[in-house]
Amino acid sequence: MAIAILSSDRDLQPWVTALKAIDPAIDVRLWPEDGPKDEVTFALCWQQPAGSLGEYPSLRCVSSMGAGVDHLLGDPALPAQVPVVRLVDPGLAQGMFEYVCAAAMAYFREFDRYQVLQQQRRWWPYIAPTMKNTTIGVMGLGQLGRYVAEKLAQLGFTVRGWSGSPKSIPEVETYHGAPQLGEFLAPVNILVCLLPLTAETSEVLNRSLFDQLPTGACLINVARGEHLVEADLMAALDQGQLRGACLDVFQQEPLPTDHPFWTHEKITVTPHCSSITDPRAVAPQVMENYQRMQQGQPLINQVSRDKGY
Amino acid sequence: MAIAILSSDRDLQPWVTALKAIDPAIDVRLWPEDGPKDEVTFALCWQQPAGSLGEYPSLRCVSSMGAGVDHLLGDPALPAQVPVVRLVDPGLAQGMFEYVCAAAMAYFREFDRYQVLQQQRRWWPYIAPTMKNTTIGVMGLGQLGRYVAEKLAQLGFTVRGWSGSPKSIPEVETYHGAPQLGEFLAPVNILVCLLPLTAETSEVLNRSLFDQLPTGACLINVARGEHLVEADLMAALDQGQLRGACLDVFQQEPLPTDHPFWTHEKITVTPHCSSITDPRAVAPQVMENYQRMQQGQPLINQVSRDKGY
Repeated sequence: MAIAILSSDRDLQPWVTALKAIDPAIDVRLWPEDGPKDEVTFALCWQQPAGSLGEYPSLRCVSSMGAGVDHLLGDPALPAQVPVVRLVDPGLAQGMFEYVCAAAMAYFREFDRYQVLQQQRRWWPYIAPTMKNTTIGVMGLGQLGRYVAEKLAQLGFTVRGWSGSPKSIPEVETYHGAPQLGEFLAPVNILVCLLPLTAETSEVLNRSLFDQLPTGACLINVARGEHLVEADLMAALDQGQLRGACLDVFQQEPLPTDHPFWTHEKITVTPHCSSITDPRAVAPQVMENYQRMQQGQPLINQVSRDKGY
Repeated sequence: MAIAILSSDRDLQPWVTALKAIDPAIDVRLWPEDGPKDEVTFALCWQQPAGSLGEYPSLRCVSSMGAGVDHLLGDPALPAQVPVVRLVDPGLAQGMFEYVCAAAMAYFREFDRYQVLQQQRRWWPYIAPTMKNTTIGVMGLGQLGRYVAEKLAQLGFTVRGWSGSPKSIPEVETYHGAPQLGEFLAPVNILVCLLPLTAETSEVLNRSLFDQLPTGACLINVARGEHLVEADLMAALDQGQLRGACLDVFQQEPLPTDHPFWTHEKITVTPHCSSITDPRAVAPQVMENYQRMQQGQPLINQVSRDKGY
């Protein structure tokens, strides 16, 4: 009876520490050095290595290490009958706001432009725009998008939001549906993507959308890599339609070493860290499901494989 | 009868535009192509070129282009009997907050560290600190420092302030005087300097102060270059005591082309742009003093040469 943690793209020690803080006797193992595979009954996964989920014959629960489960439901090695659960970190929305706010503030105060001047050793001060004169557009007004939009408005930015269905948020002008997309985009200086990934929103960040933004707008994508048409972004940056892009999500993660985004001077790459589930915040949920699994009780935060959430 | 604008380090067209928006007939000239020198009665200056202020025999008023007047009172070419005035932009404190907030948010969310990882094409997400667990220390609690500290606390950071004399600010823990400096510094992750420049505060940002911060702290200097011992900063960065520094002010401005700060990978250089007086906001003050000068009336915002402010 053991928990195996399957992830190859981050430091897993905080997870071990958080779980052992609750039960010092717990048997936690890190893939691939995780001993006899048939002793593992519970797998905790994020971007698990290909095929690794198929190695455990006694598996009785698979838990995502975060809220997303795309990486599990899309994995051919996921055993057919094992229940899948996710973790709910109440600090996610605040963490997402903090990342988006940091990226937006840097574009707003043009630290990217001053960085180019620094490289040229050029001293050229100019008057910055004000928060009120800077419009941030948030696409996607679910739990995260709504929180981010509202907090940015409280900070002093002019904020507008767009979503599939009508939403109402204090101090935020809201738009919805394809017919209002152009009107929403027209004055947006900094566009934030926090959309869910669906057939309608896949590839929505494309050349046609970029062309509806003011020249020199900036993009922050913290939703999913599939929202973005990568070639269209490169073209829009190279032709000056967009000034910069801060990307935290990619079609392939980890971003392949030879991907042109790594070295593009107008692209900031961060490794899907905009809002990372904190092991200390969710370790009790892992332990709860580990016990429920052993006692044959219903699991918490179980995912419907059909619905995908 | 003409106004000359003396500055060689920025685009002066916004000033011309703002003045002509009030009086289209006004005679505004830009040094050095400013026609017969004896026609100029009013000089508007920022970092005026050496000696330039001595070229005008009919000068009757010298105005700073901002709140600071160090560059005027320290200029040997400033004529002895001519009154000196400064400009008061009510948007300065908000502009300063916006710059400091942008720089602090970037350090807080470790965009500097992720930039190094991007250069290495390395995908390594880790859990960010939270705002509440991040302590920002503001040195100097005058008009600007107080405003910045209060707004950062409202945003969610843990904020403490230090000043020469006791001050009280909502949601900000305050310290004062040399005896409390060490206690103030002990938990500060991001130190912001907004001190006035006096004999006591000159060179206060030195090795002894850096050593009292936690290892890996960051520095934001938006006060004056003379607050900082440049060699001590370089040593503290190179030895890892400090993680990064965002500097907007320098002992010599413009920062000389061969200065090592330009190319130091842990230093962000911006050209004294943290809070730039907006010509549109202060042009009425310039015009007011230009008229008062012509009519022999008392000037507004005149500076005492003895006191230095």
